[in-house]
Amino acid sequence: MLRSTYPPPPMAEAVSSRIFAPDLLRGQVCVVSGAGTGLGRATAMELAALGALVVGCGRRPEPLRSMVDEVMAAGGSAESEPMDIRDEEAVDRLFDGVLERHGRLDLLVNNAGGQFLSPAEAITPKGFRTVIELNVQGTWQMTHAAATKAFIPQRGGKVISLTVSPHMGFPGMVHTGAARAAVENMMRTLSVEWARFQVKLVAVAVGQFDTETLRTKYPKAVVENVANTVPLGRLGTEEEMAWLIAYLSSPAGDFFSGCVLTIDGARDNWFGAWPPGGAAGEGGKPLAEERRKGEDG
Amino acid sequence: MLRSTYPPPPMAEAVSSRIFAPDLLRGQVCVVSGAGTGLGRATAMELAALGALVVGCGRRPEPLRSMVDEVMAAGGSAESEPMDIRDEEAVDRLFDGVLERHGRLDLLVNNAGGQFLSPAEAITPKGFRTVIELNVQGTWQMTHAAATKAFIPQRGGKVISLTVSPHMGFPGMVHTGAARAAVENMMRTLSVEWARFQVKLVAVAVGQFDTETLRTKYPKAVVENVANTVPLGRLGTEEEMAWLIAYLSSPAGDFFSGCVLTIDGARDNWFGAWPPGGAAGEGGKPLAEERRKGEDG
Amino acid sequence: MLRSTYPPPPMAEAVSSRIFAPDLLRGQVCVVSGAGTGLGRATAMELAALGALVVGCGRRPEPLRSMVDEVMAAGGSAESEPMDIRDEEAVDRLFDGVLERHGRLDLLVNNAGGQFLSPAEAITPKGFRTVIELNVQGTWQMTHAAATKAFIPQRGGKVISLTVSPHMGFPGMVHTGAARAAVENMMRTLSVEWARFQVKLVAVAVGQFDTETLRTKYPKAVVENVANTVPLGRLGTEEEMAWLIAYLSSPAGDFFSGCVLTIDGARDNWFGAWPPGGAAGEGGKPLAEERRKGEDG
Amino acid sequence: MLRSTYPPPPMAEAVSSRIFAPDLLRGQVCVVSGAGTGLGRATAMELAALGALVVGCGRRPEPLRSMVDEVMAAGGSAESEPMDIRDEEAVDRLFDGVLERHGRLDLLVNNAGGQFLSPAEAITPKGFRTVIELNVQGTWQMTHAAATKAFIPQRGGKVISLTVSPHMGFPGMVHTGAARAAVENMMRTLSVEWARFQVKLVAVAVGQFDTETLRTKYPKAVVENVANTVPLGRLGTEEEMAWLIAYLSSPAGDFFSGCVLTIDGARDNWFGAWPPGGAAGEGGKPLAEERRKGEDG
Repeated sequence: MLRSTYPPPPMAEAVSSRIFAPDLLRGQVCVVSGAGTGLGRATAMELAALGALVVGCGRRPEPLRSMVDEVMAAGGSAESEPMDIRDEEAVDRLFDGVLERHGRLDLLVNNAGGQFLSPAEAITPKGFRTVIELNVQGTWQMTHAAATKAFIPQRGGKVISLTVSPHMGFPGMVHTGAARAAVENMMRTLSVEWARFQVKLVAVAVGQFDTETLRTKYPKAVVENVANTVPLGRLGTEEEMAWLIAYLSSPAGDFFSGCVLTIDGARDNWFGAWPPGGAAGEGGKPLAEERRKGEDG
Repeated sequence: MLRSTYPPPPMAEAVSSRIFAPDLLRGQVCVVSGAGTGLGRATAMELAALGALVVGCGRRPEPLRSMVDEVMAAGGSAESEPMDIRDEEAVDRLFDGVLERHGRLDLLVNNAGGQFLSPAEAITPKGFRTVIELNVQGTWQMTHAAATKAFIPQRGGKVISLTVSPHMGFPGMVHTGAARAAVENMMRTLSVEWARFQVKLVAVAVGQFDTETLRTKYPKAVVENVANTVPLGRLGTEEEMAWLIAYLSSPAGDFFSGCVLTIDGARDNWFGAWPPGGAAGEGGKPLAEERRKGEDG
Repeated sequence: MLRSTYPPPPMAEAVSSRIFAPDLLRGQVCVVSGAGTGLGRATAMELAALGALVVGCGRRPEPLRSMVDEVMAAGGSAESEPMDIRDEEAVDRLFDGVLERHGRLDLLVNNAGGQFLSPAEAITPKGFRTVIELNVQGTWQMTHAAATKAFIPQRGGKVISLTVSPHMGFPGMVHTGAARAAVENMMRTLSVEWARFQVKLVAVAVGQFDTETLRTKYPKAVVENVANTVPLGRLGTEEEMAWLIAYLSSPAGDFFSGCVLTIDGARDNWFGAWPPGGAAGEGGKPLAEERRKGEDG
Repeated sequence: MLRSTYPPPPMAEAVSSRIFAPDLLRGQVCVVSGAGTGLGRATAMELAALGALVVGCGRRPEPLRSMVDEVMAAGGSAESEPMDIRDEEAVDRLFDGVLERHGRLDLLVNNAGGQFLSPAEAITPKGFRTVIELNVQGTWQMTHAAATKAFIPQRGGKVISLTVSPHMGFPGMVHTGAARAAVENMMRTLSVEWARFQVKLVAVAVGQFDTETLRTKYPKAVVENVANTVPLGRLGTEEEMAWLIAYLSSPAGDFFSGCVLTIDGARDNWFGAWPPGGAAGEGGKPLAEERRKGEDG
């Protein structure tokens, strides 16, 4: 484990958040999974910029180390914990260590997860299980450990789990669509069961975001067309995700629980631009009827 | 009011339902709004074929009269009541008459409704109000009158309200999308409040169906392309709707309440064929990644 | 494998369905998982009563054998296949055998599944994984095998997967709430991806039903109170479930795909009777305000 | 119309937001309906504290004037416009005036609305129509006017519409449950249709909040018990709502559109505390089964 001094000194002006009051999260201890890259790394940076101590975990040590370096260079505070969320004992060690070192936990961000693009008929039982194990079992293990070790005993805490939009089925990724629906339901149930311990749990359903994973690991045709699949015509940015997590972590997020917050440029409601090719009129304009009053069917 | 003998004699073999046991609805008194044409007419025919007495209402007398003639010619029993569901007093008269003549009511099918295709920016306040008044206020008035006059006093009864799919927004028909969402929520609330009176209420969300209204009142481009907007590649048939209503009206439907049953060939989950043009690979095949295992984000 | 003659002779009048036309499913080949007991057994009986050949699978041979005996005694046709849906090779063997013997498959009913009542904090990683493996992975394996071996090559087929209501979280059974949400999403995605092969997939969300499992395996306090948790004040019956499956299997079900059909006596919308104790007025009546007009907030 | 100087000088330290960076909304022109009291007033105060010019409208002039006074006393900028959102011409005048005076509009907050507590069977057609007219037609008119006059021509703008949680039916207030579902669907549709103009629309579903309306206009039994109906055991605060609106109005909210953001302390998932009276074991503890492994149903 690599760590920096805690509590950290106030961060330099230049790196503080554009959106939030300085030191908004001062004193909070936050665990972020998948913190080495993409949305997880951006989240870790923003939380640290607002004064939180971030414990970043993930499978590969290098990206985590680089995240910690970057946070420290900016005057923030972070630690890295290479581990796999599917490994039950590693999960226990992670939270035991956090509590031993810091005596508390305020937030768990379940960002780690993964999937691959494939027609459903080509997915093997093993490939399907891998995605479910990572996204559902892994998220469960992290959430359960954080709650039973920290949040329930200390009577408070927050869990934010990243899931996906669209919700009405995810063609091309049936496994992750299913897995993320499971996580959203899990957050709903736990928001009821653990409300008596003041544990608050929300899901953040993430649409298409401009991450390095997207740019480097998906087929070229997907990468080039993906912005056109979002009604707003662009991808989300990493900082838009980081800001949402920071907002929910702050006192402003204290009345959210059991909900699914979707941030996707309207992708959940439609695929692509409006009007669609096949249903547009002359010059690509939306179609309209001649008649102008209601009629019974 | 035009009516036929009731109770009717058993219908001839030739006109009985392909799906259900003969006389499944024998003795039921059913009100169907918008019963002169399209889905409402097909529903009236099926309910009557199964032995129910159908009271069909609607704004225009001719289609209602023709429906009654057709039912009677097949040996069934039906009545027609020209009226407007937006007219509070006409609604009262309708149900008062039904109860006076038949002493009971078993089912209300809220099929009447209407809308027009228009870009949202071109809809006037008056045009919007007309659609809301017809679909929400009209449905409320019918439902409330049926319940307070018949279902609550007699401690039982069913309401089936037709709404629309897709649910995640209805581009091109913002007013009816909103109106039908209101009706679905209305059914949910009433299923709770009136459960103690054994009143059961469901919404049936209807996708694209092959009705005369669709074929004759919508722009040609819409009519020609509409089957291609449904993942299953075809429109629903009028008898598929009629069968669903008959199923729910029968004893097999007694445990449904407060739910939304969607019948739409998967249109709620997607628009058109899979894979979509812009996101397909060579030869129109679904895209797949090279890598085949989960990764953290 | 135990089997009876196929195609079967017409069933005796006495055992035919109360709801459907005789021989409605004549010629269909149906696989039902968990067919030895409860909802699965009732479904198998109804499908067979309507003329279908039922291949029932499940973990324990005895209940399956007894189901087959009962079907045969009534003049129907059924086979039993003891197997575990989590066993990938057993799943392959099941469908290979069905296709070898019958040359086709029309319907897969994913009824097998399971869970246990437990506060979330007491569920172990192993206990959680067991429920996910059974309900998500098992359902996936059955669905994928049925589709790739039969439905996709033959360009048609139906899958009906049983899930649970309520949907907004399932306190006391966090694992199964999550698992079933995954299955519902899986059906949605596949309804899009496999629409081009005319494969139709729906989820049936089951509320509280009066099954032997409920009566014998749940705590006494639960069993005694469970009807009071349903707004309609009663449990669903096994035949109500069987009728729904039969309806969807018939030609009347051909336009359903990608939807979730909830049958739960309004449990999805509320817990218990209305009005609730703490929010009722004098004499248990619903509360009302004095004022009677809208106001701005 | 009463107004203060614009652009305003920076607000005093004491009144600036606890959550956000100073001047986060500097330069924005925002219309807030129902701005004189409750959540609308709190929202107006927070937006103004962050540098926005707030145009508050509502039916009664006094509360609006008092809101403007308070904003001005704190160094902010606000205007009041007494009007009724159901009055089509008044809506036109409102936005024409804003554009004439300020040349632009950045945000519309549809907060005005209203309802009354009543058993469904006691609601008159007139009472129902009043609630629909206020919440659906009024919201439509405001949204349509803001879009056609400002957002579409200027190619950008945001709409935030307040709706209600719970979503699965709203027993005791069937009219407003229906009306708010309509508004949520309206936001979804418009998020697709108007995405090409970069207009972003979201619904915020509001649970039980501690407002003056709640405390003074609802039956005593409701007021005393209402916190117990929320799983988290407390009401939301006016500033929690104001913070959410401010967050969405800021650049951090730019990728939200077409979604429903629920802030309700988990009320959407459950009613009251867990476990419920009738379903708890000894000492009020959650029930658990003896057996601990999955079984098939």
